[in-house]
Parts: sequence; structure tokens; C-alpha cells
Amino acid sequence: MKLGDGVEAAIHCAATLAGVDGNSTMPGAALAECFGLSPSYLLKHLNQLTAARILESVPGPAGGYRLARAAERITLLDIVLAVEGREPAFRCGEIRQRGPVKIDASAYVKPCGINAAMLRAERAYRAALADVKLSDIVAEYAAEGDPRSYAASCAFVERHQRPQKSASSKQT
Amino acid sequence: MKLGDGVEAAIHCAATLAGVDGNSTMPGAALAECFGLSPSYLLKHLNQLTAARILESVPGPAGGYRLARAAERITLLDIVLAVEGREPAFRCGEIRQRGPVKIDASAYVKPCGINAAMLRAERAYRAALADVKLSDIVAEYAAEGDPRSYAASCAFVERHQRPQKSASSKQT
Repeated sequence: MKLGDGVEAAIHCAATLAGVDGNSTMPGAALAECFGLSPSYLLKHLNQLTAARILESVPGPAGGYRLARAAERITLLDIVLAVEGREPAFRCGEIRQRGPVKIDASAYVKPCGINAAMLRAERAYRAALADVKLSDIVAEYAAEGDPRSYAASCAFVERHQRPQKSASSKQT
Repeated sequence: MKLGDGVEAAIHCAATLAGVDGNSTMPGAALAECFGLSPSYLLKHLNQLTAARILESVPGPAGGYRLARAAERITLLDIVLAVEGREPAFRCGEIRQRGPVKIDASAYVKPCGINAAMLRAERAYRAALADVKLSDIVAEYAAEGDPRSYAASCAFVERHQRPQKSASSKQT
């Protein structure tokens, strides 16, 4: 089992965007630079986050990305599902029905116990991810991360964020 | 995130082998037939289970596979790790250190909070898998599965199991 490395990029970018002022945006190229990623690679994941309404993409010369809602209302599960898709990791192929032991279809109405057990474990995984807010990640970084590293990240955001002319502010 | 379909095959095969009498074995070809799988495809996963000491492979004309220990001592986690490998699904690429915000290496001694949160969720997943014994899967199938389907599975095992001459019995 492996999560794509887009998950790491997506969470770091969302956490970075939690640090912009008000309704400012940050260009995708700056986010890519911040983590040493290729802008075209990152674009795919920024698009996934935008499609999932975790990010907002603002067009125009002062455009870029910003969170579509407050970091308190975004969970790690939201981000993981946006990047990896909503399908469960265990996908039952109903092989119990494939061999010579197959009997009448009415015997398979109830889900296979193996599938049920695997999905129960996956619900535990998702519940643990849903329990972590993006704001928790940011707060923990501020409180427990290396202070020099935190200051460098904040300075990067400060340098690359783009204030918006419109009066609309980040949705809460 | 996706688990390989070998996981489904491996759990079904292990559950089937939990039904053989005493120290009897079942040939890989019969297990493949039971679930409509290609024997060469299944062999890879039977080898993984054998390498992880979940199954024993007995050579010779009456050879085949059997559980290496009692079904009460095999969990779904044992089987998933045997097939999918022991590495976590989330693999931190340390992208926090890749861009221009990188500072002195001493700032990165403590694991990234994002990595820590992802691994916590994965521990919840593994704990849920470790909580399900192969014997639970078999007992639930016997108690709650379709009785016709259960009888057909038992008859298949009865037909294909190979009693062993040696007096050694399944390890408990």
C-alpha cells in the first residue's frame, strides 16, 4: 500500500497557504519553489485541491491560490481524498464468486466478511485523518517546530503572497 | 491509495487453508481454482505468505500449502504486510528541506508534523487490522455466511486436501 507523493506536497502547500494574510493569494510557482518541486508536477495536485474546493484559484496578474475555507474546516482526510480519490484502498473483486464453489447469486447478497473487515480498518484510518485539522498542523509547527525553520517559512510566504484589491475576505 | 488485489486472494486462501484437517495440505493449483485465479498469479502471493511464515509449503507428491500456525495466531495485519510490504503508505520525502526555505540540518532532527500525523493515522489502520484474527473471519463465515456457500467451500476443501503421512501436526 502506498500513497502517492502528491499527498505530502498537497498538505505542505495547504499548510503554507494557511499562512497568507487575509484574502491574499500565492502563485503556484512560488509554492513549487518553496518545496523544490516542478511547477507542472505541483499544478496537478493544486488542481485536485481546487476541484475539491479546498483551495480557490484566483485568475489574473495578482492571481494564485488561497484556502477556500478556514484551516479549521479542512482536515487531512479532505486533502488525502482530494489527491488519492474517494475509493477505498481495498477493492473487493468478489473472487469468492469466481471459482467452482460459486452457487446461486442469492448467496452473495451479504458482503463478504473479508471485505467488511478490511473496510472497517479503513474507516479507522479515515477517522484518524479526519481528526486532524489543517489548523492543528500549522499550530503545531508554530509551537513545536524549529523556530528558525518556522521563521524562514513565514518570511517566504510574506515575500510571495499577493494582496487582492477586492474587499472579499477568506470564507470562514 | 490502493491495496493490490493480492491482498484479497491471500486472505481468502489463508481462510480456506484454515479449514483443512490436521496437518493436511492443499495444492496451490486447487487454491487458484477455488477463486478462479491463474495459478502463476497466485503463486507469487502464496510465496509471500510462506516467506512471512504465515503458510508452510510442503514439497513432494502430497505437498501443498497449510497454515504455519493456528488461525487464532494470524491476523489480517500479518497477511496485509506479507503481501504489501511493511513500509508505511505515507512516505515522507522531506520536501520541507528541498526549497529555498531550507536552513541548517539541525532544524530537521524532529520529524515533520505532517509525517507524524499521517503515521498516527496509519497506526490506527494497522491496529484495526491487527484486531481481526483469521479465526474470526472463518468463524464469522461459518456463523453468518450463506450456509449453502459455506457448505460448498467446505466440500471443496474436503475434495482437495492432501493428508500427510508424517505424524507431525499443525503448530499451535
